[in-house]
Amino acid sequence: MAVHQFHPDVYYTALGVYEPVLQIADGDTVVTTTVDNAGRDSFDQQVTSGGNPQTGPFYIIDAEPGDTLAVRLDKLWPNRSIGRTSTVIAPNVVDPYYVTEMPEENVHAEWELDIEKGTATLIEPETKLGRFTLPLDPMLGCFGVAPPRGQIISSATSSTHGGNMDYRGFVSGVTVYFPVFVPGALLFMGDGHAVQGDGEIVGTGIEVSFDVQFTVQLLKGKKINWPRAENEEHILTIGNARPLDQALQHATTEMIRWLQEDFGLDARATHILLGQCVEYDVGNVFDPAYTMVCKLKKQFLPT
Amino acid sequence: MAVHQFHPDVYYTALGVYEPVLQIADGDTVVTTTVDNAGRDSFDQQVTSGGNPQTGPFYIIDAEPGDTLAVRLDKLWPNRSIGRTSTVIAPNVVDPYYVTEMPEENVHAEWELDIEKGTATLIEPETKLGRFTLPLDPMLGCFGVAPPRGQIISSATSSTHGGNMDYRGFVSGVTVYFPVFVPGALLFMGDGHAVQGDGEIVGTGIEVSFDVQFTVQLLKGKKINWPRAENEEHILTIGNARPLDQALQHATTEMIRWLQEDFGLDARATHILLGQCVEYDVGNVFDPAYTMVCKLKKQFLPT
Amino acid sequence: MAVHQFHPDVYYTALGVYEPVLQIADGDTVVTTTVDNAGRDSFDQQVTSGGNPQTGPFYIIDAEPGDTLAVRLDKLWPNRSIGRTSTVIAPNVVDPYYVTEMPEENVHAEWELDIEKGTATLIEPETKLGRFTLPLDPMLGCFGVAPPRGQIISSATSSTHGGNMDYRGFVSGVTVYFPVFVPGALLFMGDGHAVQGDGEIVGTGIEVSFDVQFTVQLLKGKKINWPRAENEEHILTIGNARPLDQALQHATTEMIRWLQEDFGLDARATHILLGQCVEYDVGNVFDPAYTMVCKLKKQFLPT
Amino acid sequence: MAVHQFHPDVYYTALGVYEPVLQIADGDTVVTTTVDNAGRDSFDQQVTSGGNPQTGPFYIIDAEPGDTLAVRLDKLWPNRSIGRTSTVIAPNVVDPYYVTEMPEENVHAEWELDIEKGTATLIEPETKLGRFTLPLDPMLGCFGVAPPRGQIISSATSSTHGGNMDYRGFVSGVTVYFPVFVPGALLFMGDGHAVQGDGEIVGTGIEVSFDVQFTVQLLKGKKINWPRAENEEHILTIGNARPLDQALQHATTEMIRWLQEDFGLDARATHILLGQCVEYDVGNVFDPAYTMVCKLKKQFLPT
Repeated sequence: MAVHQFHPDVYYTALGVYEPVLQIADGDTVVTTTVDNAGRDSFDQQVTSGGNPQTGPFYIIDAEPGDTLAVRLDKLWPNRSIGRTSTVIAPNVVDPYYVTEMPEENVHAEWELDIEKGTATLIEPETKLGRFTLPLDPMLGCFGVAPPRGQIISSATSSTHGGNMDYRGFVSGVTVYFPVFVPGALLFMGDGHAVQGDGEIVGTGIEVSFDVQFTVQLLKGKKINWPRAENEEHILTIGNARPLDQALQHATTEMIRWLQEDFGLDARATHILLGQCVEYDVGNVFDPAYTMVCKLKKQFLPT
Repeated sequence: MAVHQFHPDVYYTALGVYEPVLQIADGDTVVTTTVDNAGRDSFDQQVTSGGNPQTGPFYIIDAEPGDTLAVRLDKLWPNRSIGRTSTVIAPNVVDPYYVTEMPEENVHAEWELDIEKGTATLIEPETKLGRFTLPLDPMLGCFGVAPPRGQIISSATSSTHGGNMDYRGFVSGVTVYFPVFVPGALLFMGDGHAVQGDGEIVGTGIEVSFDVQFTVQLLKGKKINWPRAENEEHILTIGNARPLDQALQHATTEMIRWLQEDFGLDARATHILLGQCVEYDVGNVFDPAYTMVCKLKKQFLPT
Repeated sequence: MAVHQFHPDVYYTALGVYEPVLQIADGDTVVTTTVDNAGRDSFDQQVTSGGNPQTGPFYIIDAEPGDTLAVRLDKLWPNRSIGRTSTVIAPNVVDPYYVTEMPEENVHAEWELDIEKGTATLIEPETKLGRFTLPLDPMLGCFGVAPPRGQIISSATSSTHGGNMDYRGFVSGVTVYFPVFVPGALLFMGDGHAVQGDGEIVGTGIEVSFDVQFTVQLLKGKKINWPRAENEEHILTIGNARPLDQALQHATTEMIRWLQEDFGLDARATHILLGQCVEYDVGNVFDPAYTMVCKLKKQFLPT
Repeated sequence: MAVHQFHPDVYYTALGVYEPVLQIADGDTVVTTTVDNAGRDSFDQQVTSGGNPQTGPFYIIDAEPGDTLAVRLDKLWPNRSIGRTSTVIAPNVVDPYYVTEMPEENVHAEWELDIEKGTATLIEPETKLGRFTLPLDPMLGCFGVAPPRGQIISSATSSTHGGNMDYRGFVSGVTVYFPVFVPGALLFMGDGHAVQGDGEIVGTGIEVSFDVQFTVQLLKGKKINWPRAENEEHILTIGNARPLDQALQHATTEMIRWLQEDFGLDARATHILLGQCVEYDVGNVFDPAYTMVCKLKKQFLPT
């Protein structure tokens, strides 16, 4: 149950079998940092090239293909006072005929983050919003493990191994479960957002560097097909694909499996329960793979 | 500002230019009933054939193409104690390879509704859920106006005129705005659900007949493109299409228009605001057209 | 086996239960005309409002729901010398980020049709193409029967009843089969194209009025689910939906059924045959419902 | 202009930066072999594990990111007499409700290939097809270059770098153009099909090992975005994505660029030309990314 302080000096813009930066054991906690999507750190200095650079990979001792890696996001918090967003909704998110009516220039907006107060305030550009203020709601945009079949997959996209899911529900206190595809699992994380709307429809949250603390747990011999998660209120499954319909199919199928395998429900009970109680969240509709989240309130689970 | 008590004796399973059952004026309130999706009334008697039979159409005096009709759902409540659901998740909602692993027989489940306590309890079939109880959350599955271009469109599907959107957010207290395409607007409603999960993934909510009270308001010369709505907390826009991606495009585009036209926001402000504050709900992923809802908290609107 | 000369004086921009213009019997032939998509006739005179106005409906005596109506397109030919096209590819057909790089103004192009030579020559606008000449390949963009469930559906779109499929394979000599949903079937036709590319990606073919001759055959008690067709070389099934993936699912499923029901193939044989011999054509990717065509060469059918 | 005889002894089931097996120069020809999808060679011996194992990578001297690699498929021919196919259409290719009506067991079919006569004859299983015979039409299912951003991508799927496109048009005589993303381009190829239907809807063509001869040409400083190709009759562009709609968007956009950049057409001319002359082929609708091909007859190109 060690606690590791880890200061990254190398970052990867893809998830795959790279040299591990640290070996950790089941139950260990890591305190580390992530740079923002553009490769800027807590001093707003460019320390690596952009494109969702990832901290890691962390090698989890004894993790083998067919296991499940649980990652508890103990604490996620911006570690600097400036955040940036894009300012034009992506053309794939609006009606094709409306694309030419949108702002032409995608300038960057700057936001001042007040960590004490827990707010983000729009500084520029000048718009009718003025100095618009939002509550911080820090979440991790991209994290996951090395994918299967020897692949190395860009941190711009996502699949069964996690990756760039940009789901606003991945906040402090959530535990996320990833299938293990390679020895050591190889955990990566980055792309912190101080705030993000559903869908990440401008292509960014409020992008910022993060202090991160997480704790891993290894579930030996537990096989899952897609990322799963839980928070105080819900259990969740995540599907990553295009179109959204397919992402929803993946997430729903994984939820059915979870209920039948781990909660002792028969098939008929599972279908009746989900039919009247399922909830869906839209993760991202910007990245190459979209993300749909299937949720069920824990209060509805059999006891 | 009349209050009309209306007892339907004819129902339609499509929305279009049919003989109005009642003429009402701007500001009027109607107290009426709807039968369930199968055509059964408050005595659980079959009074019309199934397929989402609609009460109406109500002719709103002075409504003309190019206007907007506001419908406030004052009160929606089940008026009998038995509700029914399907019990198998639709094959289009799971991975294609998983379809053959699902229950073969789509038996009907029966639920006992306790109107006093506000609960629905599963009576049959026998499953591991036992006598599973859910809080009532009554919503209207299908409502809307006559569509454009002389069309008559089945109450199984939805489009710009509303229809079978099966969105669990359409509860008592919500005001829904429809574009008016024909003289009198011609308002229809039916397909009440005592409870429904997101997506209506088994193809039904807990289907039941309803007592309904609604009040109309006519917005002369106000043109909208898709259904809009508001409740205490949010403004909402609704897109109906397949795939979900296209429904999301329709809803997002309509929200952009609404913010720019009615709330005095410039384009840049609108895009920045939605980028970090937008929310999406999944309406249905069962009907021929899927439904996606775009939401914005009223607290973020300019004052 | 009568031959009817029919001169239309009413047109509909939707398909549904309207007053029939002519009653015809099984085996009868009709010689008639269609106006172009904008309502212009053989004299290029506007005789009705635009939006794919349809000639018909023709009532086929004895046709009842559950039958199939075969329509042989005996002869389709432009009956005037001017045709028109749009000149900008639809924004839904290109990458969303490319939309703003396309021509802004969608001017109309004019083409001179030489019926004798069988050519269409671009007259204006002036482009690097100059006086570009194409061989005529006349096809019917929109035709079909009254849809099910009392619906009236716009001639801008398509579904199980046919409609605006904009498939360049619907040329002289093809026989098309439609499911009959209402007494008399109620056959409509219009939207002739002198030439059209796959997908109708600019939203038009070379739009022109037509002389049309067709012959109907009634297949009593023969039930089909989607339009089917045959020409000298192929049997074809048509799926209309969005996205293209769903249109392809409809067309493929209908082809499987056809092979198993009418050609004496077992399921295994059907799947092996289609696996190695199936062909697909893209009908339209412009209209509200896209069209995908599934084809099989007759030479591969069991004898 | 060397001719290299290359006998592979290592295969990869993903495309990316692996150790090159051979360095070749602009203009060189390679004569080599590919194993079938399951890793079986010309003696039907398992020589590597399955999953579309690839011959290569071939390092093209002087190729750098931003160049284009032209690969002429001089000759593709099966080099053994047994081929195998799956026998059930994939569930994503039919209506979701039809999935449970399909054959349960996906047995393998065996085909006898007569290289002299150019035929494939079904040997087993026993079906109503009997000893069904098809003409050989050998094509390469999977080939491409190393992808961008340091990625290694499975040979089960495809993207801008090519990969598992399963397009029946990739036959002897075709020249295919790939964007170069890494030094040396790193060309891979495998997954030969003796015959294949459009879409590869059973998930296989007639899978067989191949003799392959190809010739490379390096187009320095020529930048393309997606694979392109040409044969005697057509120029072609290839889009790989889901849904088919997005694959079609990619292919169409790349064709517009090609016409405007290399054939001296203004935008208006390009749009008019494609509007009436474009053709589409369905590549595959089985793999994780679907493939759509956009084609234009060379006879319509400006001279």
